Amino acid sequence: MSVPRYAYLGPAGTFTEAALRQVVGPDEALYIPQVDVVSAIEAVRSGEADFAVVAIESTVEGGVTATLDSLAVGEPLVLLREVLVPVDFTLAAAPGTVLADVRRVAAHPHAWVQCRRWLAAHLPGAVHVPATSNTAPGALIADSLAVAVAFAPVGDRVAPLQLGFDAALVPPAAVESYGLEVLAEHVADNPSLVTRFVVVGRPGEVPSATGADKTTLDVHLPSNDAGALLTMLEQFAVRGVNLSRIESRPVGDSLGRYSFSIDAEGHIAEERMGEALMGLHRVCPHVRFLGSYPRADDVRAVVRIGTSDRDFRDAREWLGQLRDGRAH
Amino acid sequence: MSVPRYAYLGPAGTFTEAALRQVVGPDEALYIPQVDVVSAIEAVRSGEADFAVVAIESTVEGGVTATLDSLAVGEPLVLLREVLVPVDFTLAAAPGTVLADVRRVAAHPHAWVQCRRWLAAHLPGAVHVPATSNTAPGALIADSLAVAVAFAPVGDRVAPLQLGFDAALVPPAAVESYGLEVLAEHVADNPSLVTRFVVVGRPGEVPSATGADKTTLDVHLPSNDAGALLTMLEQFAVRGVNLSRIESRPVGDSLGRYSFSIDAEGHIAEERMGEALMGLHRVCPHVRFLGSYPRADDVRAVVRIGTSDRDFRDAREWLGQLRDGRAH
Amino acid sequence: MSVPRYAYLGPAGTFTEAALRQVVGPDEALYIPQVDVVSAIEAVRSGEADFAVVAIESTVEGGVTATLDSLAVGEPLVLLREVLVPVDFTLAAAPGTVLADVRRVAAHPHAWVQCRRWLAAHLPGAVHVPATSNTAPGALIADSLAVAVAFAPVGDRVAPLQLGFDAALVPPAAVESYGLEVLAEHVADNPSLVTRFVVVGRPGEVPSATGADKTTLDVHLPSNDAGALLTMLEQFAVRGVNLSRIESRPVGDSLGRYSFSIDAEGHIAEERMGEALMGLHRVCPHVRFLGSYPRADDVRAVVRIGTSDRDFRDAREWLGQLRDGRAH
Amino acid sequence: MSVPRYAYLGPAGTFTEAALRQVVGPDEALYIPQVDVVSAIEAVRSGEADFAVVAIESTVEGGVTATLDSLAVGEPLVLLREVLVPVDFTLAAAPGTVLADVRRVAAHPHAWVQCRRWLAAHLPGAVHVPATSNTAPGALIADSLAVAVAFAPVGDRVAPLQLGFDAALVPPAAVESYGLEVLAEHVADNPSLVTRFVVVGRPGEVPSATGADKTTLDVHLPSNDAGALLTMLEQFAVRGVNLSRIESRPVGDSLGRYSFSIDAEGHIAEERMGEALMGLHRVCPHVRFLGSYPRADDVRAVVRIGTSDRDFRDAREWLGQLRDGRAH
Repeated sequence: MSVPRYAYLGPAGTFTEAALRQVVGPDEALYIPQVDVVSAIEAVRSGEADFAVVAIESTVEGGVTATLDSLAVGEPLVLLREVLVPVDFTLAAAPGTVLADVRRVAAHPHAWVQCRRWLAAHLPGAVHVPATSNTAPGALIADSLAVAVAFAPVGDRVAPLQLGFDAALVPPAAVESYGLEVLAEHVADNPSLVTRFVVVGRPGEVPSATGADKTTLDVHLPSNDAGALLTMLEQFAVRGVNLSRIESRPVGDSLGRYSFSIDAEGHIAEERMGEALMGLHRVCPHVRFLGSYPRADDVRAVVRIGTSDRDFRDAREWLGQLRDGRAH
Repeated sequence: MSVPRYAYLGPAGTFTEAALRQVVGPDEALYIPQVDVVSAIEAVRSGEADFAVVAIESTVEGGVTATLDSLAVGEPLVLLREVLVPVDFTLAAAPGTVLADVRRVAAHPHAWVQCRRWLAAHLPGAVHVPATSNTAPGALIADSLAVAVAFAPVGDRVAPLQLGFDAALVPPAAVESYGLEVLAEHVADNPSLVTRFVVVGRPGEVPSATGADKTTLDVHLPSNDAGALLTMLEQFAVRGVNLSRIESRPVGDSLGRYSFSIDAEGHIAEERMGEALMGLHRVCPHVRFLGSYPRADDVRAVVRIGTSDRDFRDAREWLGQLRDGRAH
Repeated sequence: MSVPRYAYLGPAGTFTEAALRQVVGPDEALYIPQVDVVSAIEAVRSGEADFAVVAIESTVEGGVTATLDSLAVGEPLVLLREVLVPVDFTLAAAPGTVLADVRRVAAHPHAWVQCRRWLAAHLPGAVHVPATSNTAPGALIADSLAVAVAFAPVGDRVAPLQLGFDAALVPPAAVESYGLEVLAEHVADNPSLVTRFVVVGRPGEVPSATGADKTTLDVHLPSNDAGALLTMLEQFAVRGVNLSRIESRPVGDSLGRYSFSIDAEGHIAEERMGEALMGLHRVCPHVRFLGSYPRADDVRAVVRIGTSDRDFRDAREWLGQLRDGRAH
Repeated sequence: MSVPRYAYLGPAGTFTEAALRQVVGPDEALYIPQVDVVSAIEAVRSGEADFAVVAIESTVEGGVTATLDSLAVGEPLVLLREVLVPVDFTLAAAPGTVLADVRRVAAHPHAWVQCRRWLAAHLPGAVHVPATSNTAPGALIADSLAVAVAFAPVGDRVAPLQLGFDAALVPPAAVESYGLEVLAEHVADNPSLVTRFVVVGRPGEVPSATGADKTTLDVHLPSNDAGALLTMLEQFAVRGVNLSRIESRPVGDSLGRYSFSIDAEGHIAEERMGEALMGLHRVCPHVRFLGSYPRADDVRAVVRIGTSDRDFRDAREWLGQLRDGRAH
């Protein structure tokens, strides 16, 4: 059969899987779990998968800088779609456990940070047993292996310990995946947080412009001079293109040289974005286009005066007349 | 006959006539003298002349702001060529006069200012008899009418006086035109000063790009906000277009609203100039193109990295590939 | 006696005299008429006058570029006050003249331009007899010398002619000064136009800030590079200082090098203006402060968020705490 | 005893410990290992430690965004020093192991990525057994617990497996800490990569300026408008302050609002940095100063024309004279 194949940070129950389920149901696609986002992205490059779903902006799933770096080099890939998943954790345990019994909580360090206030209020003496991922504790519970290895002070040194744990902070979807008992739901301190995921694919037809799009780029600066970053940003500003994200990433070979990962509001098919991209291409030593795709939040770009497609076409027509000697 | 007709600030012997002679000899064109630059420009609009030669940047001929203002409104005209004339004055008089006799010197006020140091050194007590133009005193001498009307203190008031004068500061060409006696040549204090003249005509085919061109524009700002001028200038800067002149001119109806008269380095046929013009057209309420024409000084524009025509074409091709789904 | 002495572009009846009358009445000051603005300014430098009143922004009085250039070099002077005079012309003649008789109208070329539409409507065939100044024709009429020298085509050449004239375009105040007959009042085409004059004096105590002030500067650019003008303007923009006038003036020795004459909104005593001036001083090769003084139109400067004096003082206090190790 | 107490990402053998050893030897300080960078930073806030050593810019240690976010909110802390540690990995195993036997390699996912090319060349079929940290596998080997839990495909699903491993990628220092056998040294693909660590402490006296300093800031933008980022960056550019790092971080409550973590070249005691900070304080809703400290690479800041301390002092003196009425 020819269902599309999606690589993602697995296993079942991860936030990434929740993102993937928003994109395509498990009946209509082959889900191919991967151990990390780099592997998920490489699976597309190698042809093992058609698409990858990876976190690109997140405080709980990790993988963001790895995502940016993996997309920035190697065979070109593009982003095709954006998916938002709420940051929501469930405190879960093996069937039969009750909250009062919980002393040790397995959690990925990021998860632990996101739930600190809840834990301080409801499990004040709880010990953190760090986990490799958000779903690993669930899987361990499911296999009756509720034991993880951590490091604890022994005298003034530390030693590895096999630490049992009584409960775990897991994504909501992991409860069903691993047959866990829910001790408390929605324990993340900030209920409005979301993680942003993207669907990555091989270059091809660009998704049509919707008026509420993003364009993702990786741009190297022409120099490290004081004004180089300003010069680059002016390429957007002068065409009225707003940025919704900008992150500097060290260029692989040393600290002190940076590339910029950028989300710009708008679509490559739009005139203002096209001219901004051409400007970057002219003055920056390296510009990688990583796709134009609909925004998950459906917020339409603000089109400033003089920057609509019609304004650009009018200006082009006017210039053509001037060049033909019909002055105004 | 169909020789071209040139309106200019006459009569014979003016700096403007010297500029006109650089453009076309009196045998190949009809010279149509005018009393001021506005009349010269209007003569083209009315069809009375084919071209006008007018000063556009000068400290001695006057007429500059009148030139800018006359070009900025009314039926569109364009600049076709630039001519430079050295600021050079001759002290002249009626035949038989000697320098030692000179007490009163007729001179246009601008001429007087340009020669102050020479006059202070060689004619320390000389009185300035103001003239209407640089050539009027020569014409008056020629007609034995070496008398001008000026105003002198009488008690604590002033009264008009018919003032005779012994000599005049005139353009070198006026010596022959009016049969004058040369008392001293090259009396302007700054021998490197030049006046810039332009040939004005009706819109038509734009002169070809030479690599050493200027483009003249009249631009209104979108607002009087602090950043509006910066925003306008960035339209040039972001495309690597240098400006060689910028002057604010009050927009006719009140102080406090300005238009900007601009000379930009380059030609409308060049990509970077074209994109800058389109940018201005999009964000400024009014842009008047006043021509692209060869620079008289033949200084080629500095083309910054990423702003050559080829860079623009490469960027356009790259964008086309991205839009077609061929990511890089 | 010790009444203050004011040099101005005379004689009686000029627009400049009208400006001077707004500053100080003729009973409380000595009015010292001058033949041009340069002479008026030099009279202050030489000590012959205490103050000068000169046009600094005008379409009818001329003298503006001469004013800017004279202030930009030589012994430092400062502007102390601003005065606005409406551009208003009266068509006047010798007593007994009626409008129907008028064929030749004496007028300064600028005056002629300002009244063109009225003249076309009411005196369609009238001939322009150019005058040296706005008041010269009035004085000539007063002395029964209603004759001027002009140049008219004779064949395809021109010759000087002594041209009589029947009426003159004069400033309203000239009617009384010269005992003229009014043929028509308010004949200027644009009744809202004003000319801006300034009172010039020697440096001393700066007039106090009023909240509705201007600061005038003469600034040379560090280079002719594309970005140099932007860099200079950013010194204002980044401190929230708006500009109300900017004019480029060729630096004396050649075309292509410019200084900028600038009116900035605000007072040197204000923090944001002070920091902008210091910024200019640091990065520009030459900055001449030409005074902070109340605006004639009493329009208060818009103080953008974060740019009030209080904001600057708060920021300075905050920085002091940080430098002392009290981080926030 | 009163030796200083340093919290750091432990246990022994981590890259962070290598950084800490550059700061202070274990004989002169108390090393307090922590499970993550957040805990290390919080240990300073709680008083449990005097200082923390944490990664702030790294591709192999993780913790960077956690570091930035932890410093950006909560009780103010400052950076006191910067330390660079080369990214260098050793392939190590239990004594007696030989390279030819290695099939399964335990490694933190970041470590695995850094050594991919080496692994592909020397251990082409090796399976990645993901580890919680860079040192965990070493500790496990030391305790004869060379087993980790990972996830492997079972049919089209995945299941947790207890995976033994034969060798591990560890920091060089971990070899001695855990008594491991070296199979290969310097197996990281890019030998020039370094990780940047900082020493974090409570606010107090700022380290003296050395001429080769960095200043770290956390800045919120005044708005999400297109120009807000440019406006912020201009506060640096107009004072000639270069940036060596800029990263956007989502402000906690939702995607789409950003703060910027910035490293600026220079020291708060320098005039240009002080004025830039005051400018940020005035126009940005939130600016947190996170310290000025010597750069580890000892590269001196480039001081652009007009931005030395002396230039600032000269400008201040000049302004004072102008304000006192001594115009120039």
